[in-house]
Amino acid sequence: MSPQPLRVALLGAGTVGAATARLLQGRADLLAARCGRPLELAGVAVRDASRPRDGVDPQLLTTDVEALVDGADVVVEVMGGIEPARTLIERALRRGVPVVTANKQLIAQRGPELHAVADGAGAGLHYEGAVMAAVPVMAVVRESLAGDEITSISGVVNGSTNYVLDLVARKGVPFQDAVRQAGELGYLEADPTEDLEGLDAAAKIVILARTAWDLPVALEDVQRQGISRLTDADFRQAAAHGTVVKLVASAWRSRAGGLDRVEVAVRPVALPQDDPLAQVRESVNVVVIEARSAGTLRLQGAGAGGDETASAVLGDLVRAVRSLP
Amino acid sequence: MSPQPLRVALLGAGTVGAATARLLQGRADLLAARCGRPLELAGVAVRDASRPRDGVDPQLLTTDVEALVDGADVVVEVMGGIEPARTLIERALRRGVPVVTANKQLIAQRGPELHAVADGAGAGLHYEGAVMAAVPVMAVVRESLAGDEITSISGVVNGSTNYVLDLVARKGVPFQDAVRQAGELGYLEADPTEDLEGLDAAAKIVILARTAWDLPVALEDVQRQGISRLTDADFRQAAAHGTVVKLVASAWRSRAGGLDRVEVAVRPVALPQDDPLAQVRESVNVVVIEARSAGTLRLQGAGAGGDETASAVLGDLVRAVRSLP
Repeated sequence: MSPQPLRVALLGAGTVGAATARLLQGRADLLAARCGRPLELAGVAVRDASRPRDGVDPQLLTTDVEALVDGADVVVEVMGGIEPARTLIERALRRGVPVVTANKQLIAQRGPELHAVADGAGAGLHYEGAVMAAVPVMAVVRESLAGDEITSISGVVNGSTNYVLDLVARKGVPFQDAVRQAGELGYLEADPTEDLEGLDAAAKIVILARTAWDLPVALEDVQRQGISRLTDADFRQAAAHGTVVKLVASAWRSRAGGLDRVEVAVRPVALPQDDPLAQVRESVNVVVIEARSAGTLRLQGAGAGGDETASAVLGDLVRAVRSLP
Repeated sequence: MSPQPLRVALLGAGTVGAATARLLQGRADLLAARCGRPLELAGVAVRDASRPRDGVDPQLLTTDVEALVDGADVVVEVMGGIEPARTLIERALRRGVPVVTANKQLIAQRGPELHAVADGAGAGLHYEGAVMAAVPVMAVVRESLAGDEITSISGVVNGSTNYVLDLVARKGVPFQDAVRQAGELGYLEADPTEDLEGLDAAAKIVILARTAWDLPVALEDVQRQGISRLTDADFRQAAAHGTVVKLVASAWRSRAGGLDRVEVAVRPVALPQDDPLAQVRESVNVVVIEARSAGTLRLQGAGAGGDETASAVLGDLVRAVRSLP
C-alpha cells in the first residue's frame, strides 16, 4: 500500500513557479523516491486564473490562495514581493506546515521574524533558492560548515551586473552601451535599479551573513555602492593596473567596542586577474567562503534562472518532506 | 535545566582524529549551540593508550573500543582501514546509533551493506569527510540536488597527484623529480601507489556516482589509469598543444542493452587551459557537477588535511545529532 501523497501548494506561476510546476509533475517518480512518498501538486495560486501559464494544468490554477495554503502539507512560495507572501507563509508555519521559498527580499527583510514563527511551531523554513539559485551556498553555510567557524564570505552574486561588467572588461564595450545590451538581452529588469544599485546583492549577503554567524544583520547595515556611477575612465584605469572591476558582496566578523559584530558590504572592487572573483564571466555567480578549519571553499554556478531556481526549490522540498515526522 | 550531554565515541587518533578531538573540545560552546545540546567526548579508541597524542587528554584514550562504542550516543570513526572499522560501525548502527566516518576505502568497498544496516536500524550514516574533506560535495549530490537529475560529475579529486602534475606543468620540473619532491614534502605516502595509480580518486568517484544515481557502482567498475607511467614526452606534447595534464575522475550515465548504467573513470587527460579542471593548482581539489535544471556547479577547496577533514566530520556530527529523535 503506497502512502498518501503529500499535498504541495505552489504560490506563484511566474518564471520560477511555472518551472517548479512543470518539474514537480515531470519528475514525480524521482521526487517520490527521494522523499519516500509521492507528492501531489494540489494547486497553483495566481492573481488571474483565466490566463494560461506555460506547462501548468489550467485546472490547478486558483485565486483562493488561503484555502490552498490551509489544505496543504507543504507550501512553496515563489510569488515574490513582501505581501501577501509574508502573511501566507506565516499562516502555513503557524499550522506547523513547512515552507520553501525563493523570496530573497522577503527573507532579507523579514527572515528573523519568520524564523521565530517557524521555530515556535516546529515547522521548517527553507530558502536555498533565494540566494544564488541552485548554487548550494545556504546548505553549505547552514549545514556543511555547522561544526566550523566561518571568518568571511565574499562573492559575485548578481549575474546581471556581472554580465555588464564582463562586457566592458573583455569586449571593450562602453559602459552605458553594455547596460543597454544587457537590458535588451533580458539580463536586466525594466527597472534595473535593484541590480545596478546593489540591492539584490545586498539582500543575498545579508541572508548569508545572518546564517553564518547567527547574529542580527539588516539590509540597512550594508555598506552599499552600486555600479551605476562608474565611468569608462574607471574601467580604463582598472585595466591599466591589470585589474578587473567586479561588484563584490562581502561579509566578515569584526570586534568594535568589545562587541562581536558582522560587517557587510556591496561595492565595485578592482581585483587582480587571478582572483577567483575576477574570473567569473557573463552571468555566472561565485562565492568564496573562508572557515577556520575548512580553509577556502569556492562555489560557482548559475545564480539565476527559472529552472536553476526551481532546482533549489525542489531540493528544499525534498529536505522539508524528509524532515517531516 | 540544560539537557544531558550526548556521548561521542571517537575511534582513531591519527591526524584527523587528533584534530577532531581538539576541535570537539575547543568548539564545545559553538557545537552545543548548533546541535541544540552539549556534546561530550566520551573517549578516544587507540591501539596503544600509553602513547601520548597531540592535543588529546590522555585520560580519554582507551583500547576497549567495544565498550566505548556500546556506551556512545554517536560514533565518529576516523581510524581508517576496513577492519575493525567495519565491524565497529556496524555494531553501532545495529544499536540505532548514528555514525560519522571519514573512511573512504571502507565506504567505497562496503558502503551499500553498511547503508542497508543503517536503514534497517533507522540510524544515520554520514561521510562527507570521506570525499574531498570539507569540500561539501556529498551534501550537494545527496541533498541539494535531490530534486534534480545529475548527468555527470568530473573532478580533480586527488591533491597529491595534482601537486605533482602542477609542478611539472607550471614549474617545468621533470616528472620523476616532481614525484620525489612531493614525497619529501609529505604530499605522497611512503607507498604512493594509492595516489599515483588513481586508487584514491577511484574510491571517491565511486562513492559520488553511487550517491548521485542510487545505482550499484563498485571499485572494479572504474576504468582506471594512474599517472605513474607518464613520461616527460607526454607533458611536452600536452604543453605543445596548449593543454594541461590532470588526473581526472569522472562519472556519467549511459544506456547499454536497454539498461541504465553508470560509467566511472579515472585517467590522465590533457585539458584546454581554460577548463575549470585545468586551473586548480598545487593540492587544490575541484569537482564540476552537471545537472539538468541546476546547470553546471563547481565546488573547489582543499580536499585533504587533518583540520579540513575534521571540519567535515564535525559538520556531519551536527547533522547526525540534529536528526536524532
